[in-house]
Amino acid sequence: MIVDVITIFPEMFESPFSQSIIKRAITEEHIQLNIHDLRKYSRDKHNKVDDYPYGGGAGMVMKPEPFFRAIEDIGYDKETEIVLMTPTGQQFQQQLCHKLLQKKHMIILCGHYEGIDQRVIDQFVTREISIGDYVLTGGELPAMVVIDAITRVIPGVLPKQESYLNDSFQNGLLEHPHYTRPMEFRGLKVPDVLLSGNHAEIDKWRHNQSVRITKKKRPDLLGFKTNN
Amino acid sequence: MIVDVITIFPEMFESPFSQSIIKRAITEEHIQLNIHDLRKYSRDKHNKVDDYPYGGGAGMVMKPEPFFRAIEDIGYDKETEIVLMTPTGQQFQQQLCHKLLQKKHMIILCGHYEGIDQRVIDQFVTREISIGDYVLTGGELPAMVVIDAITRVIPGVLPKQESYLNDSFQNGLLEHPHYTRPMEFRGLKVPDVLLSGNHAEIDKWRHNQSVRITKKKRPDLLGFKTNN
Repeated sequence: MIVDVITIFPEMFESPFSQSIIKRAITEEHIQLNIHDLRKYSRDKHNKVDDYPYGGGAGMVMKPEPFFRAIEDIGYDKETEIVLMTPTGQQFQQQLCHKLLQKKHMIILCGHYEGIDQRVIDQFVTREISIGDYVLTGGELPAMVVIDAITRVIPGVLPKQESYLNDSFQNGLLEHPHYTRPMEFRGLKVPDVLLSGNHAEIDKWRHNQSVRITKKKRPDLLGFKTNN
Repeated sequence: MIVDVITIFPEMFESPFSQSIIKRAITEEHIQLNIHDLRKYSRDKHNKVDDYPYGGGAGMVMKPEPFFRAIEDIGYDKETEIVLMTPTGQQFQQQLCHKLLQKKHMIILCGHYEGIDQRVIDQFVTREISIGDYVLTGGELPAMVVIDAITRVIPGVLPKQESYLNDSFQNGLLEHPHYTRPMEFRGLKVPDVLLSGNHAEIDKWRHNQSVRITKKKRPDLLGFKTNN
C-alpha cells in the first residue's frame, strides 16, 4: 500500500513513525509512506497557502491551487482513495480500517485553519474521515491515527502473538482486564481464577468481564442507549 | 496546566509538538508538557516493562511496578486527573476537552501490547479515555490527540481570528463549506451568494448548508439514526 500525505507540517510526521511497529512496517515495505509539503506547491513568493474566506467570517481557508497541483503531481487514478481528514467527515471505525486496507493507493489531505476550499473536495476527495467528535489544530494527528490503525492490520505487520483478532471492537465487546507478574504487589492480588490453570473457567471469567465492562462503559456497543 | 505523559516511546512526542500552535502554547507556558520514559522505572536489567498474562492467551501485559514508581515519582494529589488511553475507555468528545481544561494537573498513561496490569488502573486511574472505536499500536497518538484538543481551547492559545466558537460540534452542527480566492479556478466557481455582500443571505446559506451536511453525514448529531 502506498500512502501519500499532503500537509503544511511535514516535519510533524518524523518522530511518530520512526518507532516501533510502524517503523518496522515501513522498513519491511508493508507500507510506503510519502510526506509532501503543500507549501512547495504554492506559487506565491511567501509560500502562502491560505486566504480570507469569501462571504466573510473568522479564520482563513486553504487555497485550492496548491492542493490541485500537489494531487496532480503525486498522480492518481480512479482506484485511488483521496481522503480529507476533517471533523465533518465519516467517523473512523475499525471496520473502515479493513475497507481502506483493500486500497493500493491513498492520498491523505491534512486540513488547517477554518478548512479547505470546497472545490478541492468536490474535485478530488473520495472520502472525508473524522477520527472523533472533537476538533484538533490540524489534520496531521488524525492522518497519523488512520495510518497507524490501517498499518497494524496489514497481514504480517503485527507479530503473531499480538494478533488483532482479540482486540476490542473485533467481536463487538471491550477487552477483559489483564494481569501479569508479580502475583501480589503491595497487597494487590491477581484474581484467583487466572492462577487456577482451569482454562474453561478462565475463558468464562474473561467473557463475563468483557460483557460487564462493555455494559458499564459502552452500552451502545450492545445496542443499549449510551450514558456518555 | 501541567501534563505528564508516561510512555515507552518518549521520542514519538518530539516532532508533533515542535510545530505550530502547540509549540507556541508550550513556549508561552499555557501548558507544561513533560514526557517520561517508562523504561527508566523498570528495575529489570533489560529495562523490561512487560510480561506474560496470567491465565494465558496472546500478547504481553505491561507490568504494574514501573507505572507505580513513575506515577509516585511524578507526584499527584486528589485533584490530579490520571488518564489511561485505551480503546475500552470513555469516548473523547469536545465537551470532555472543556471539562479536562479545568484540571491543573494531568498524568497520561500510554498503553501498549495487550494492555496494562489492572492493578495500575484500580490504584491510580481516574478516567479511561478512548479517542474512537478503533485500535492503534499504542496510546501515544491518542495522548497527542487529547493534548492537542485541550491545548487549542486554553484561552489565549488560538489567535482571536481562529476562535473555536464556530467549530464543528460547538453548536451541534457540522461546519458549512468554505471558499477563498480565486473566484474562479479551472472553471470551478465560488457560489454567487458568498460574493453578494448580503450578510443576511450569506448567514442563511451557511446555516442551511450546515444543516444539509449534518443531515447527510451525521444524522445522529440531529437525533436521527446514523447510517454509518
